[in-house]
Order: sequence, then structure tokens, then C-alpha cells
Amino acid sequence: MRFASFFFDRASRAFGDRPTLAKLVFIISGASSGGLIAYADAKTDLGVSSYQRPSKKKIVVLGTGWGGTSFLRNLDSSLYDVQVVSPRNYFTFTPLLPSVTSGTVEARSIVEPIRNIIRKKGGEIKFWEAECFKIDPSNKRVHCRYTSAKHTGETDEFLVDYDYLVIAIGAKANTFNIPGVEDNCHFLKEIEDAQKIRRSIMDCFERATLPNLNEEERKKILHFVIVGGGPTGVEFAAELHDFVSEDLSKLYPSIYGLVKIAVIQGGEHILTAFDERISTFAEEKFQRDGIDLKIGFRVVKVSDEDITMMSKATGEFSVPYGMVVWSAGIGTRLVISDFMKQIGQGNRLVLATDEWLRVSGCDGVYAVGDCASIIQRKVMEDVAEIFKAADKDNSGSLTVKEIQDVLEDIYRGYPQIKLYLKSRHMSSILELLEDSKGNGKKEAIEVNIEEFKKALADVDSQVKALPATAQVAAQQGNYLAKCFNKMKDTEEQSEGPLLIRERGRHQFHPFRYKHFGQFAPLGGEQAAAELPGDWVSLGHSAQWLWYSVYASKQVSWRTRLLVVADWTKRFIFGRDSSCI
Amino acid sequence: MRFASFFFDRASRAFGDRPTLAKLVFIISGASSGGLIAYADAKTDLGVSSYQRPSKKKIVVLGTGWGGTSFLRNLDSSLYDVQVVSPRNYFTFTPLLPSVTSGTVEARSIVEPIRNIIRKKGGEIKFWEAECFKIDPSNKRVHCRYTSAKHTGETDEFLVDYDYLVIAIGAKANTFNIPGVEDNCHFLKEIEDAQKIRRSIMDCFERATLPNLNEEERKKILHFVIVGGGPTGVEFAAELHDFVSEDLSKLYPSIYGLVKIAVIQGGEHILTAFDERISTFAEEKFQRDGIDLKIGFRVVKVSDEDITMMSKATGEFSVPYGMVVWSAGIGTRLVISDFMKQIGQGNRLVLATDEWLRVSGCDGVYAVGDCASIIQRKVMEDVAEIFKAADKDNSGSLTVKEIQDVLEDIYRGYPQIKLYLKSRHMSSILELLEDSKGNGKKEAIEVNIEEFKKALADVDSQVKALPATAQVAAQQGNYLAKCFNKMKDTEEQSEGPLLIRERGRHQFHPFRYKHFGQFAPLGGEQAAAELPGDWVSLGHSAQWLWYSVYASKQVSWRTRLLVVADWTKRFIFGRDSSCI
Repeated sequence: MRFASFFFDRASRAFGDRPTLAKLVFIISGASSGGLIAYADAKTDLGVSSYQRPSKKKIVVLGTGWGGTSFLRNLDSSLYDVQVVSPRNYFTFTPLLPSVTSGTVEARSIVEPIRNIIRKKGGEIKFWEAECFKIDPSNKRVHCRYTSAKHTGETDEFLVDYDYLVIAIGAKANTFNIPGVEDNCHFLKEIEDAQKIRRSIMDCFERATLPNLNEEERKKILHFVIVGGGPTGVEFAAELHDFVSEDLSKLYPSIYGLVKIAVIQGGEHILTAFDERISTFAEEKFQRDGIDLKIGFRVVKVSDEDITMMSKATGEFSVPYGMVVWSAGIGTRLVISDFMKQIGQGNRLVLATDEWLRVSGCDGVYAVGDCASIIQRKVMEDVAEIFKAADKDNSGSLTVKEIQDVLEDIYRGYPQIKLYLKSRHMSSILELLEDSKGNGKKEAIEVNIEEFKKALADVDSQVKALPATAQVAAQQGNYLAKCFNKMKDTEEQSEGPLLIRERGRHQFHPFRYKHFGQFAPLGGEQAAAELPGDWVSLGHSAQWLWYSVYASKQVSWRTRLLVVADWTKRFIFGRDSSCI
Repeated sequence: MRFASFFFDRASRAFGDRPTLAKLVFIISGASSGGLIAYADAKTDLGVSSYQRPSKKKIVVLGTGWGGTSFLRNLDSSLYDVQVVSPRNYFTFTPLLPSVTSGTVEARSIVEPIRNIIRKKGGEIKFWEAECFKIDPSNKRVHCRYTSAKHTGETDEFLVDYDYLVIAIGAKANTFNIPGVEDNCHFLKEIEDAQKIRRSIMDCFERATLPNLNEEERKKILHFVIVGGGPTGVEFAAELHDFVSEDLSKLYPSIYGLVKIAVIQGGEHILTAFDERISTFAEEKFQRDGIDLKIGFRVVKVSDEDITMMSKATGEFSVPYGMVVWSAGIGTRLVISDFMKQIGQGNRLVLATDEWLRVSGCDGVYAVGDCASIIQRKVMEDVAEIFKAADKDNSGSLTVKEIQDVLEDIYRGYPQIKLYLKSRHMSSILELLEDSKGNGKKEAIEVNIEEFKKALADVDSQVKALPATAQVAAQQGNYLAKCFNKMKDTEEQSEGPLLIRERGRHQFHPFRYKHFGQFAPLGGEQAAAELPGDWVSLGHSAQWLWYSVYASKQVSWRTRLLVVADWTKRFIFGRDSSCI
């Protein structure tokens, strides 16, 4: 669920809270920008010097995905002693992973070595290529393990101390403990996964041409099954269909007609996170392409030969397959579930943080991206304190003046109120209070605590968990880096909203997600784009928007050039079919 | 030993036997050609149709390396029912494999799918991605096995019948049964090997930076050992040195000083197959670069931590290492040694063929490239028959006229005579006879059988086995294809030299290798080139010659463009350091 979405944190920073302007500029920037993201090529060397400056606080970052990398790139690394721990020494531009499975884009074109990013930032950051396998919040340190690629089983373990820990290690694929999924399915979370899928597709085609098979066996080998109708599954199905019809059909003409691509989706539609118009468009496109949409089916078992599924109408049945790609949701990594048990969150699926991305229940630990979820404070839990804070004269009722004085702080602390007003087509909380009182005269409004509670009773229905997308993780990493950059200044002058239960203000503004839309490429130069303000774009134009946005969103000029070169290469020569 | 050589079979075909002209044109073609190699993009479909034409003879080709691919590309596939069996569905441009280890060139840029080549030829060729594990010459069929990448151990076996079998499966790395080599060393024969080496280099650097190591341990991990001072070993050492000094030094400045690259060579010099000036130049260049040349050392054991070697001066000793690349020669594949046992060649290392590339001891089997070696007929074994064939009047002595009548046939049948004459600075066999007789008057020469034998006594010293290079394999594949193309015509009108022991002529000219020189890239934009006519080029100019020749020699416009793009990318952005 991480892919197929894009984000404009940079644009949003540049344009503050003017979404309309940001929207306009974004179309233009799609084609021409990139300069926004370019770095100065600082030549300063890495070194062990920062070890001798114990005065700096230690930040340890776990992970080099969207959250971790966005944090690193925006952090002023001269203020802290920064260490990064990740089993991958590169950042992956995950929205293009499905393109790697078919060779539309090469694996190396969508990765950027973390050490390049570090070097461009002046080189004061340490990177350890290792996996964190235990977080020890009571001693403020993490246990790390390097696993040698040379000799299986040979490992180096070491400890890293922290003052601040930023957890950004993402999630793993969720098998829902369905038997056989782990052993027999491909996943699509990492570069290696995409490379394996590519080899597997080619192996299926080579195997299906062998002379000793009958047609039934060939059909089995050429049955490609995708489980999950989310953006990743749909995009992979589209890429596979293009690869087969545009390239492999010419190289394997005798077996091309036997290929079948199936998408299994438990819900009633594919792309349920998108606008309904997009779901419908995608389903129609897939049906035209001959992709078998198994809507309303649930997988119950995957053996090494068959996949077993069921629906209400059909009951349980098995079909033989050649390859299954599993893209049915995200699950918790072991190190996170261990950590959650330690801090009393053992019954949760992902780490709970407050709106400042601090992990609840321990000191100095932050979490961003797919491994965490923000617990938004409920208005109804704080409603008495909100009333009290606003009621400066302790009169037991709020006047218009009193409400207006704290309005900005209430909006900032409880964004669900604004969402609720928007859903009711109201411009201000005053209208809501007035509406609930049935009173026509705004200026004269004065409410007591019961009326106040009654008016706000339903606003918490607007609290929704953020989606597990690259866009969210990147905005969170960026937000957190900015907080660390202004840590000193805000200690003296807090910038956040009013503290409701205590005196004073929060040190920082809470994190607020800005949704800039999402894409679903559907193959055959067709895409669907959902943009802010209910704007939906379908077809070729959306595909070109996709090309330009994804090119501009690359992390460096190097990868930008490589991705565009790969697209050009594909247009001219088609995709490579070598089994490597 | 296959790499680092180039060939000009096309140029040689175009210019026949005029090597001087060919040489001149070759410099120009390096920069501008490629068109010579381009195909028409035939759109004809593959199909199973040729199965229904049993009248065509079946050719089965084993292998898609230089020999097999060159055969396929030059064969008129409409004349035969052609099937190709290879575990790799692509051709690899092996001279650039060392460049893949450091990322100067990407793996996909130097491979061309066999099915693309087949399609361009009209699509009448079948390809099976499988390994031939047994050749059965008595039943004229081969046993093949497809090994699934999905489930280890799962295989499909099938039989393929042939009328003609072309064995072009190359060789494997030779470990000389030295303990630990198979388990602990990298080899550099296939694309996968190069990719593994690349990951291993990056793993060594990432591991050596870990915080829990002392300097001794870091030095061990950063000790890169190359065994074998042939073209592959030397080129890999040069590529590694460039990668480290140009790219990794900037990303890993704290450990860069601990890197050591060592080349172990048993002989007295590196690059012994090259001109002495090149060996000296390479050794001096490596010494300036700080590469540790261990000349005259022999490896006796490789454990997972240490490599043990010995020399006369030092005796046996061990050094710890981080990575060993083994490039010490070629060995026989299992299927070939099995086959040799069946046909009475069990005591040989490679298949023996005659000068027409026919495997001695069985019918309809041909072998090209590293898995075979041509047994050149000895003049001294045939000398009585040669004399008899020339002595048309049965006078017991040869006159000038009689010798001149058969001269061309003798030269064609026994190329060692021409080489011997060249080494003695003589222009013709007549001079040799005259010289050995001590007679000044050429026209009056007349020799008896004893004088004839005496004069030719030393010519067989010029018989040398061909080197195991891409150049030889490609020329053999091309030669064999041409023979098959004119099989019909030559059955009626033989084109070969006189049969010495029987009446008539050989059906075809024997295969004659034309050496067009070889390259050794030495890193830092320096190379050495050995060209025909004892021409040696050293330094930058040779490197640019190397670039242009290797670009022009790519198998398709696609790979040509990709390789040039990779070089350009490296010039602009350097090499990628991601562990993928």
C-alpha cells in the first residue's frame, strides 16, 4: 500500500498553506522541476571526528526508506551526532518497483546510495549496514547485527547508544498466516523482490516452451496470479500485461496465447483506496486487456502447485499456477513487535505515537512511516478542558470573543474539527455552535458546557489513521527533521498550540499530513490520477503526468536521468528478456 | 583466458586475405562501424512449423557463448531444422565482464537475448533453456535438463535428436583441485559471477566500516586477492583499483587507506600471453598504483579466512583476506569429460577435432571454442604421401614444376610450413629445399624423398594449440556456419585442398585462425593493445582504441548504445555503490 502515491512535501513547504497555488505549480513542476530537489555537491570528507565531540546529542536512525531518508536529508546534521543503521545501504524509490519487475526501469536506476546522500550533506553522518534486531529503551541503546553475504551464519553484533531514536524501518508483507504463502509466493517490497520476480517471469516463459510439455502444463506455467487489488498489485498486473503483450509476444509467439493473468481481490472492487471513478476505469481497462479479475475471492492456501481460494458463490476451489505475487497488505516486523511488548503496546499492530511522532510510553523515541500510527487526541476526551481553557473569566459559558481567542489553537490541536466543519459545509466552529443551538444571531452566541459538548459530539468521527504510503512517511521524516533542527530555539520560545491540561504551549506544531493525491498506472500508456480537490484524471494524460511527476520526484539528478533513459530505452528497444 | 581479446572475423571476411588493408580499415571501423553487424529487423513469427518438415536435417547447437552464437548468426537457418540448447537464454559479451564487477558497465548492457537473435533471423530456430547433461553419439541424441529456479531439485528432462551436433559449451574455471578454492573463491566466467563479485566488494567495504572492529580486522576484510595474472585477472584488478580510488575513496574515506589489492601469478610475469613490452608496462603501472604483485607464487590452499601460498624464496605462508577472485585457467565440464570417455578420448583435457572442427571418433559431431582443440596434421607423418602426391611421374624425385603444382594445396593443408618459412625469413618452400641442399640455382632444383624429409624435419615445431579466446571461438562458429551453408554445393564441387592419402579433394577448406590482436585494459584510462604485425600500443591511445573497438563489436545496436551510455554515465556520475 506504500506505492503508487506521490507527495509534494517540498512544494508544500515552499507554498505554506496555500493549497490552490501549490496545486497549480505542481503541474508545471512535474515537467520542469527537479532543481528543487538537487543538492549542492559538497566535497567535505567523512571522518571519525564527530566521535570526539561528546557534547552533541546522539540521534540514531533505523532504516533508509522514505521516512529515514527524508529525515536524513532535511536534518541539520551539524547539530547532532547522527548514526544510521539499515540492512540496505541505499534508498529505493518504491513507486517504481513494479516497473522493475518487467524491466521497464532498471533496479539501479531507482536506488540512491545512502553514502551519496551523506556525502552531499557534508559527511558528518555515520552509516552502518546492519539490521537492528533489538531496541533497549531502558538503556537507550539498540542491538545491531551485520550478516555476511559471504558465509551464511557468520554475523557481527554491536551496540549503538542513542539520546534520540528515530524508528523508520517500515513493515513487511502480511501473509495473514495463510498456509504456504511465505514459501511459495513472491512479495514486492524490496529491490531484490522485484529482481526475483523478473527472473521468475522469464523462467516461466522459458519453461513453458520446453518440448516435453503438453498444453495443459504450459497453461499452468503461464498462469500468473496476483493476490491483492491495491495499487501495488494492480500496477504489477498492468506492467506484466504490457511486458507480455508488447515484448514477450514477439519472442514466444507459440505460447503467447496460453498466458493468463489473474488478480484476486477480497473486496468488491480493486483500488478501493481510490475514487470510485478510478476503480471502475481500472476494472474496465483490465477486462478489455483480458486480465481475469477475481473480485470477492479470498485465498485460503497456496501449495507449490496450486492456489486455493473461495468466494460465497463458488465455495472453495484450487487452480494450478506458474507464479504468485502476494501484495495483500503490510505486517509488523519482529523487532517492532518485541519493542511494543517492552513498552506496553503488545496488543497493537503498529507503534502508537502522539501527534509529535513520539512513541507513547518511552523517552526520546520517535517513529515514522509504516511501522507507526498516530493516535489523534479525541475532542470528546478533552472537551471539558477545552471549555475551561477558553472560558477565561470562569463564567461557565463561552462568548464569541472567548471562542475566537482560542479558535486557532483548537483547530491546530484537533484537526478533526475542521474536517467535520468541511463535511457539514460550515466555515467556522461558531456556525456549528449556532446551528446546534438553533439560534440565528452569531454575535450574540454564548454557550454553556453541555451545549458545547453536544455541538462537538460527532467531530471525532473524522479521525482516520493515515494510509501506509511513501507520501506519509516522507512528510513525517521531513517534519521530524525540522523539529530537531529548531529544538534549541523552541526550547526558549514554544511554537506549538496551547496545552489544554497544563499551562503554556507545546514545543512544536503537531504533525499534519497533506495529501497531494495518488497515481495508479494501468498499463498501455494509461493511468489514473487522483488529485486534491476531487480532481480525477484518467487515460493517456494521467500517464504523462505520472511520467513527469515520477521523474521529478527522483532523489538525485543521477537517478532522474537514469529513469528517463530507461523509459527512452524501453520506447526504442522494448524490454530485455534475458534471464539475469 | 577467454576475455580481453577482440576479433575481426567480419572484417576478415570482407577483406579476404589482405591483412594489411584489414588492419588499416580496422582503426577506422572501430570508431564508425557497427553497421556491419546490424541486422534487418525481420518481423516473421516463431512457430512450430519446421517440425512438419522432416526432410530438413536437424542441427542441434549446445551453448550460446561466442562459438554457438557466432554459428547461429551466420547459419542460413532456412536450410536446416535448428535447435539450440543452453542454460542461458542470452549471449554475453565476455570481454566486458570485468567491467561489470565494478559497475563501469551494467550486466544487462552486455547481454543479448538469444531469442532476439533468432527473431532477427526469421524465427525458424528453436531455443530450449536447459542444460545438456549427456551426449549419446550412438543414438545421435542429447539428454537435456531444465532446472527450475522456483523449486530447487525440480527438473524437467527431455531428449533432442540430431543429425549434426555442434558442441559450443565452453569451459569452466579450473581449480586444479586446490583445497578450498571451489568453496571460498569467486570466479569470473558468467554474468552471475560478475554480479556476485560486485555485491561482495560492496559488502567488504560496508563490513569494514562497522564500529566494533579493530584496524587489523578492517585490513583483513579489505584485502582483495586475485589469483592469476592473465588478461581476466589483470583487467579485474585494474577495474577494482579504479573503483576503489575513483569512487569508493570518496564514500569510505576513513577506511580507504586500509585497502590492499594483490595479484598472485605463478609465472615470472603477468600477461605472459602478450608481448613482453606489454607485460613490463602493466607491471610498472600496477606498481605505481600500489597493487601488490606476487610474482612466482603458487596458491596451495584457501580457507574461509586465509589464503596459503608459497614461492621458492619464501616457502609456505598464509595471509588473511576479504575476497578472492580465482582466474587461473579453464577446466573441462562434466558433460564433455563423460562424452570424451565414450568416444575414446578419455585421457584428454578438451575434445580433439580435426581441422574441419569435426570431433574425432564420431559422426556428425562438431566442436568449437574452449571445449575443443584442433589436432593439426603433422607434416612428418604425411611426408611420404605428400611426396608421392607431388611426384606425378613417379620418378622418385620432385622437380620445381612438380612442387609448384601442389604448393598451394600443401600450404593449405599444413599451415605450419608457412609459419616455419616466415620464422626463417624465406618466401617459399623452394628456398627451403634449396637452402637445405646448399644449391644456388633454384630452377634446377630436384629433390628425392630423403632430401625432402630432411628439409621439412623441423616444420612441425610450429604447430601450436589455439588460445582459449573469444576470438577463436567466434571465428570457428562463423567458419562452421559457412560450411553448413554450402554443404550442398560442395558435395558436388569440393573446395578444399587435395586429399593426400586418397584421391580427390576435401569438401571444405580447413579452418584457419586469423589473429587480430588483443587488448589489456589496465585502469586509469590506460590500456595495452597488441596488434598484428608486432604493433604494440600503450597508454591512453590504446584505451580509446579499446573503447571504440569494444563498442563496435557489440552484438546489436541495443547493446552498443547501452554500453556507450554506461561509459558516459560512469564519466558523469561515477559508479554506483549500492549493495544490489
